[in-house]
Amino acid sequence: MRAVRLTDQGLVLDNNYPKPTVGAGESLIRVTLAGICSTDLELIKGYFNFRGVLGHEFVGVVEQSSDPAWVGRRVVSTINFADPASAEFAEYGLEHHPRRTVLGIFARDGAMADYVAVLTYNLLAVPDEVSDEQAVFTEPLAAALRIAEQIQLRPSQSVAVIGPGRLGLLVGQVLSMRGAEVTMLGRSAGSLELAQRIGLATGLVSDVSNSLFSITVDCTGSAEGLEQAIRITKPQGTLVLKSTYEGLASINLTKVVVDEIRIVGSRCGPFAPALRLLSRGQVDVQSLIEGRYSIDQAIEAFHHAAQRGVRKILLELS
Amino acid sequence: MRAVRLTDQGLVLDNNYPKPTVGAGESLIRVTLAGICSTDLELIKGYFNFRGVLGHEFVGVVEQSSDPAWVGRRVVSTINFADPASAEFAEYGLEHHPRRTVLGIFARDGAMADYVAVLTYNLLAVPDEVSDEQAVFTEPLAAALRIAEQIQLRPSQSVAVIGPGRLGLLVGQVLSMRGAEVTMLGRSAGSLELAQRIGLATGLVSDVSNSLFSITVDCTGSAEGLEQAIRITKPQGTLVLKSTYEGLASINLTKVVVDEIRIVGSRCGPFAPALRLLSRGQVDVQSLIEGRYSIDQAIEAFHHAAQRGVRKILLELS
Repeated sequence: MRAVRLTDQGLVLDNNYPKPTVGAGESLIRVTLAGICSTDLELIKGYFNFRGVLGHEFVGVVEQSSDPAWVGRRVVSTINFADPASAEFAEYGLEHHPRRTVLGIFARDGAMADYVAVLTYNLLAVPDEVSDEQAVFTEPLAAALRIAEQIQLRPSQSVAVIGPGRLGLLVGQVLSMRGAEVTMLGRSAGSLELAQRIGLATGLVSDVSNSLFSITVDCTGSAEGLEQAIRITKPQGTLVLKSTYEGLASINLTKVVVDEIRIVGSRCGPFAPALRLLSRGQVDVQSLIEGRYSIDQAIEAFHHAAQRGVRKILLELS
Repeated sequence: MRAVRLTDQGLVLDNNYPKPTVGAGESLIRVTLAGICSTDLELIKGYFNFRGVLGHEFVGVVEQSSDPAWVGRRVVSTINFADPASAEFAEYGLEHHPRRTVLGIFARDGAMADYVAVLTYNLLAVPDEVSDEQAVFTEPLAAALRIAEQIQLRPSQSVAVIGPGRLGLLVGQVLSMRGAEVTMLGRSAGSLELAQRIGLATGLVSDVSNSLFSITVDCTGSAEGLEQAIRITKPQGTLVLKSTYEGLASINLTKVVVDEIRIVGSRCGPFAPALRLLSRGQVDVQSLIEGRYSIDQAIEAFHHAAQRGVRKILLELS
């Protein structure tokens, strides 16, 4: 089958990668669409030293399953895999299980291929009213919703989302719906155009005075973005780290301690609420799509996705 | 009067510093004892660019006051000063008021002098059963208690306190009393002797495996301590920054995001609970005293306090 693989020689499109075998408790999915995420771009740069098939944002149709009721259904899958019967499962769940694998990120082949095998346990059915183009955003939308699982967001609070990119625009929409005054912040007027089209309030991060926001979400993944995020957070405010960061970053700990700022690392989120929002059409994901490529043009697709300011690039599998 | 001043030429003992004048709403305190804190040592290195009289841990007797009922009473004083009638007071309180001054730390002369002027609003009476030697620990003990104002500490949680120094030993005692399993961690067996004498469980930080503690408190103020603190914190655990950090420090943000660790900056705490614990004799502060010097030997006292592993050095004023 076709598969987009990260190898010691870099990213390759392999037209003869073996179709996954389906183990106990697993399902085989014929992939329809997959999305390129910033994490994929970081993996290519060496993050986690991953080798294997990329892809953790996808939608597809079940072809084989440990539970025959799933066969033929359109599905998405959560991306952390661990044995639900293991001793650590009760304490850590899937997301933080010490022996988990992560689809297309850590020790498990991902979904940028004609077929992907996942644990049946991780499947969710896609409602009929959610298109494939929408469903492929379930994973990043869930990641955006994760913030509200971790911290209390009061409708009266002022929230800044730094980085109006792929993930930031989902975070901005999700937090705005809670009634909070959300401002999307970017480095240039051009970077904020899409946010404005979607109907979000915007501003230049360089125009923001110090210590202005109760909650700041950093979606930049850059050291400069993080520095700005700390700068604009109020005393006793919360800074949510929503990006993939590579390795070490320098933080102004004097301000963190003196202003008693809380920093919250934030990762994978709940899929079911994401599908509910998509089925109600309450999040604009379509506007984020900037290109669609056949998997046969995967290398070009990745070059496109890596350009500054480019939002979602999708790979078509069939 | 005598005063320990931080000047452009460094630390000096000034025998002719003007006695403070007492403004509206203020009280003049004749200082009895003052403590040297790690923050004082950082200020000498240039932290906050402070110039003036050092000292924010002290006990004394009120000589003049805007409220005559205070005259003659033995007192301590909280260290953040702002106008309680100001518009920002309701939102920020004293501790985070944007126009606050901080005793002996920021824009306000401190207590390593024969006399110090404070706002009467900030005074607390010292109970008779609390000695001067105990009362001088009110400020750092309050800072240790601050942690429980910020995060929920469940009795069943595993807690590590890294850095068995001046502040760490207070934090370790305070958290132990809550029923949690607290381990004081240090870099060498010698550094942990006092913690053991006080009755705290101890361990070498290098012996601790990764991701072991639900709550980690970093009292080291060093980049190495912070790195270890992140390393030993469990997924979804909390890391409390309890130290004075100078400027930037590098943080492993990959682990913070992937393991969804919360980092909480923590600063000044509540004085009344600290005095309650001291009056009940529930915190051993006496064991932390490593030396007493007359203010006339202040420079020697600071040299002593700056040596590795030295705990509390006190300055006697009268």
